[in-house]
Amino acid sequence: MPMEKPLILKGQIIDTPTRGEFRVREDHFLISRQGKVDSVCKSLPQEYKRFPVRDQGKQLIIPSFIDLHLHAPQFLQRGIGLDLQLIDWLEGYTFLSEREFADPDYARKMYPPFVDELLSKGSLRSCIFGTIHNQSNDILVELLQKKGLIAYVGKVNMDQNSPEGLLEKTRLSLEDTEAFLLKHKDNRNIKPILTPRFAPSCSRELMDGLGKLARKYQVPIQSHISENRLEVEWVKQLFPEEDSYSEVYHHHGLLQGKETLMAHGIYLTTEERELLKKNRCRVIHCPEANLNLASGILPITEFLDQGMLLGLGSDVGAGQTLAMYRVMVRAVQSSKTLASLNPEKESPVLKLSEAFYLGTRGNGTFWGEVGCFDPGFSTDLLVISDPLGEKMNLPPLDRLQRFIYTGDDRNITGRFLEGREL
Amino acid sequence: MPMEKPLILKGQIIDTPTRGEFRVREDHFLISRQGKVDSVCKSLPQEYKRFPVRDQGKQLIIPSFIDLHLHAPQFLQRGIGLDLQLIDWLEGYTFLSEREFADPDYARKMYPPFVDELLSKGSLRSCIFGTIHNQSNDILVELLQKKGLIAYVGKVNMDQNSPEGLLEKTRLSLEDTEAFLLKHKDNRNIKPILTPRFAPSCSRELMDGLGKLARKYQVPIQSHISENRLEVEWVKQLFPEEDSYSEVYHHHGLLQGKETLMAHGIYLTTEERELLKKNRCRVIHCPEANLNLASGILPITEFLDQGMLLGLGSDVGAGQTLAMYRVMVRAVQSSKTLASLNPEKESPVLKLSEAFYLGTRGNGTFWGEVGCFDPGFSTDLLVISDPLGEKMNLPPLDRLQRFIYTGDDRNITGRFLEGREL
Repeated sequence: MPMEKPLILKGQIIDTPTRGEFRVREDHFLISRQGKVDSVCKSLPQEYKRFPVRDQGKQLIIPSFIDLHLHAPQFLQRGIGLDLQLIDWLEGYTFLSEREFADPDYARKMYPPFVDELLSKGSLRSCIFGTIHNQSNDILVELLQKKGLIAYVGKVNMDQNSPEGLLEKTRLSLEDTEAFLLKHKDNRNIKPILTPRFAPSCSRELMDGLGKLARKYQVPIQSHISENRLEVEWVKQLFPEEDSYSEVYHHHGLLQGKETLMAHGIYLTTEERELLKKNRCRVIHCPEANLNLASGILPITEFLDQGMLLGLGSDVGAGQTLAMYRVMVRAVQSSKTLASLNPEKESPVLKLSEAFYLGTRGNGTFWGEVGCFDPGFSTDLLVISDPLGEKMNLPPLDRLQRFIYTGDDRNITGRFLEGREL
Repeated sequence: MPMEKPLILKGQIIDTPTRGEFRVREDHFLISRQGKVDSVCKSLPQEYKRFPVRDQGKQLIIPSFIDLHLHAPQFLQRGIGLDLQLIDWLEGYTFLSEREFADPDYARKMYPPFVDELLSKGSLRSCIFGTIHNQSNDILVELLQKKGLIAYVGKVNMDQNSPEGLLEKTRLSLEDTEAFLLKHKDNRNIKPILTPRFAPSCSRELMDGLGKLARKYQVPIQSHISENRLEVEWVKQLFPEEDSYSEVYHHHGLLQGKETLMAHGIYLTTEERELLKKNRCRVIHCPEANLNLASGILPITEFLDQGMLLGLGSDVGAGQTLAMYRVMVRAVQSSKTLASLNPEKESPVLKLSEAFYLGTRGNGTFWGEVGCFDPGFSTDLLVISDPLGEKMNLPPLDRLQRFIYTGDDRNITGRFLEGREL
């Protein structure tokens, strides 16, 4: 049988197969077959010599980025109203803008620039909150699909403590959710994810129903937890019978689905962390959003040392940027800030290589063999150019750091997902 | 006498004449004569009706940015080696790269992209550290001049605790400095500024000599102060006779020049703040750099409430970006972080309008009537386009916030300095 044509790129290949350090392979070939990494090697094996090589020269080849928490409808409002904290910001801005998506024409106008930006910033896989509106959610699914991206999209559920126009009836919310699941569950690339907004906006009945759907269809769940001090207090008042915010979700079966992503988690107690860990629930760190809404800082190295499963998210629109490379910077800066303000603690600081790991290989575990260039992994990659750094002959790792800190979409000269160029 | 041709722009005009709030004047005309704002008005006065109007439509017209602390030779190293703190970062990266500028050919290669970026990011006025090398400093002056920018450039002084290649002999350092002052002091746009690197790298004799030059030529001074805990300790050990870091500078006449800019100031005591205030010394807040080098966070609202004179700087290369709009974001985020980590203090948080004030009108006071659109002020402005925000009919102030948080140089469609388009 003749070999199907492989994809072969040559360049400066950098990834983080484990949380420790960058792996740098200079002037190597990356060979991909059927969308998966076959090998990365210094010289091309004989059987591949007859195929064309895309030589990227001094440019970098890195895993494409993965964003595990963001809100598509908040794309337009990025940067606006950030003098407020969570609850006021939700009520003053976010809910108003999400309401607009009742009109599918609005979604047809607003979602294309969002999807374009996701692609341009190199986040080729993501987990996305839509709105409560299935027509608009379907449009989002369709647009992501058309661009060739891979994602989970959630129809948001909220049946209490929500403004008119976003307040669902419990039964209808569950019916719409099941319809959305059924419509998209067999999609190859854009799959559905259950998305109770957060405990304050969900009744017990709604959460119970979503827990059942999670088990029935074996779909993952995404939500928010312990982002803000006032929010944590509010949950205590709303659910006085439960021992903690995490127990509210646990009680209603929302930690027992295929996998659960919980954004933020800043104020989780030690007991809650153990509960989440036991249930393989992933806490998604969204440092930029936490800075913007003055929510506090996740003690990320503490979480990592406890063996918590962690992810990284842009949390657009509370976070202003879809660029995961910049979210990595903010994760490092936030960790440094905690350390510098508490010098007596001598806490370890998140390294850039660890932040990069989280936004590539770490987040990639949500899909499986995704996020680095080990053999068998999905060929998801970006080509990064840095004309000045190349001209000055900076080492590849210095150029990667320069890109993460100072680059933008203009430096991303190639985007491949499962071996296909987008 | 016939009126010289005025510059007239129409658009959405936003500035911050005082530290409080944004001033928004929608669909107004800005009339500029001989490089200065004549007036901003809703309808064009009769005598101006015969002149062409540059109609920017929905676009914003804002003051151009001003950066009061940055290091030109560190432009290439932005983002690299930021897992270190100040002293290690200086010794491991910064000094090595600054040493290269002994070769003027290196400066001819490296300074043009720096100057281009300064212009592209809209920082049309700035105070810049060069290196110890006058030939390279002259090249920097010449390049800034050619691009039409306005700046102060400093020849750096360091005669102790510095590596080979950057360690000057005291007398030569002072002679070179005087030669640099004499060569450029009568320049209109690019002026010299005295630049002792920081106390640890300056002998008492050098500081005394620079203090005398400051008074002889009535030039301003820029340096660093209290950026990092270890640095403060080091200064104590080096100058045990002085009561504080600030007293070291004061004792040697470095706070008594025309005006002194001191970067950072995070760990200044109450007494030091009073001393600096009495001497009209300006503390330049560089929030991005402070986050990167884990230096700590300046309690900026406390400083402002005490009536300290403050400025804002990118501190490239410890700060990774020349974009002052993003430095404003970091100032706000840093202030929020301090507040969110110390909720019991109930400290006020820096508002975006205050950060914008600092980076325009506040920094502009260093030159005089610069940084807003009051009559008589220098016509320094940027035109800002936000195609999506304009299409969605967002109010001008929302679009300004979007630009500050999410925009880049592609959104800056016009740059004017003293009424000249650059």
